[in-house]
Amino acid sequence: MQFITDPGQIEARSMELIAPYLAGLNLPPQVSKVYSRIIHAAGDPDYAKLIRIHPDAISVACQALRSGCNIFCDVEMVRTGINRRRLAELGGQALCLIADPEVAEEAKQLGITRSMAAMRHFGTALNGGIIAIGNAPTALFEVLRLIREEAVRPCLIIGVPVGFVGAAESKDLLLAEAPVPYITVSGNKGGSPIAAASMNSLLYMLDK
Amino acid sequence: MQFITDPGQIEARSMELIAPYLAGLNLPPQVSKVYSRIIHAAGDPDYAKLIRIHPDAISVACQALRSGCNIFCDVEMVRTGINRRRLAELGGQALCLIADPEVAEEAKQLGITRSMAAMRHFGTALNGGIIAIGNAPTALFEVLRLIREEAVRPCLIIGVPVGFVGAAESKDLLLAEAPVPYITVSGNKGGSPIAAASMNSLLYMLDK
Repeated sequence: MQFITDPGQIEARSMELIAPYLAGLNLPPQVSKVYSRIIHAAGDPDYAKLIRIHPDAISVACQALRSGCNIFCDVEMVRTGINRRRLAELGGQALCLIADPEVAEEAKQLGITRSMAAMRHFGTALNGGIIAIGNAPTALFEVLRLIREEAVRPCLIIGVPVGFVGAAESKDLLLAEAPVPYITVSGNKGGSPIAAASMNSLLYMLDK
Repeated sequence: MQFITDPGQIEARSMELIAPYLAGLNLPPQVSKVYSRIIHAAGDPDYAKLIRIHPDAISVACQALRSGCNIFCDVEMVRTGINRRRLAELGGQALCLIADPEVAEEAKQLGITRSMAAMRHFGTALNGGIIAIGNAPTALFEVLRLIREEAVRPCLIIGVPVGFVGAAESKDLLLAEAPVPYITVSGNKGGSPIAAASMNSLLYMLDK
């Protein structure tokens, strides 16, 4: 069987095949890039009708990334999926505390998820950074609480937790409170590749 | 807003909410566990009609895992998503060569993807192991070629690459050739969480 083996060609052809799904949406070019990369990561054009991007999300993120901001991830899969070489060139790091023994102990004692305890542990370190949540609704709920009650102030939330318990609700709350710019996806769908793809689409916009 | 914060409760409630989507399918209990965990990872019940599991897949995998077999992943996100602590208790490791400098060099020289070069590099080390492909169709094409042309013999292929270029075709070829037992998903959908969820569902079956 013949198939394309060149990574550049695979990506270019993928984007060509995704373009028709976005044709009717009148998206600005940069927004369109975020949509394309999410649909590419999921193999699922249905995302086109689920994605919600705050009007300031891309400009705020690009400015912060150029200033070397850090990215705070709920799980290691998100961190692993981010192009950390590109991020490091800009002076930023992708961080995740889910495997931290102190965080694990705290989560166990409080009866909460480790990713929720991890966000709490980051605390004011989140100020000015980008949050990338691809797995845990509880992490997104906690970030919204930290902003609401503890005056923590990230510059952008990529909030795409996945699943049947709390995921849709946490993203609805993000859209309703919208305390900072966001990239999200309505409903149960989402996941680490969606968070990483969103993040990487922003990183690649900075390439000249 | 009230939400469930206890990880055990979240998982139990998730599985309850997923059960109705599987009700009409008459799946054996262990097969049902693989389906549930995939749907859970994607937040997407549509997977119920896309999943294909070879009748011997689960028994073969459980036997191999009990014997300490290794898992060979196409990308780091898959490796990261696998419960490696549980795997290590059984004597196995999750391996990925995509970041190996030799593999990167070989891929560049041949004009192929790094994940394809990585599978070639594993070669006969794949014998008896489980392949977990969550991203790259080219890696799945290459594994099928290694089996067909170079007598390599993994015990199971979890083949769920994602996307619009080659993903559906590579999975169709896996189903058509079926040289060893498989777990796969028809069409464009798939991804690292689907591969990791499939793998973890097998690992958790071994818990007593």
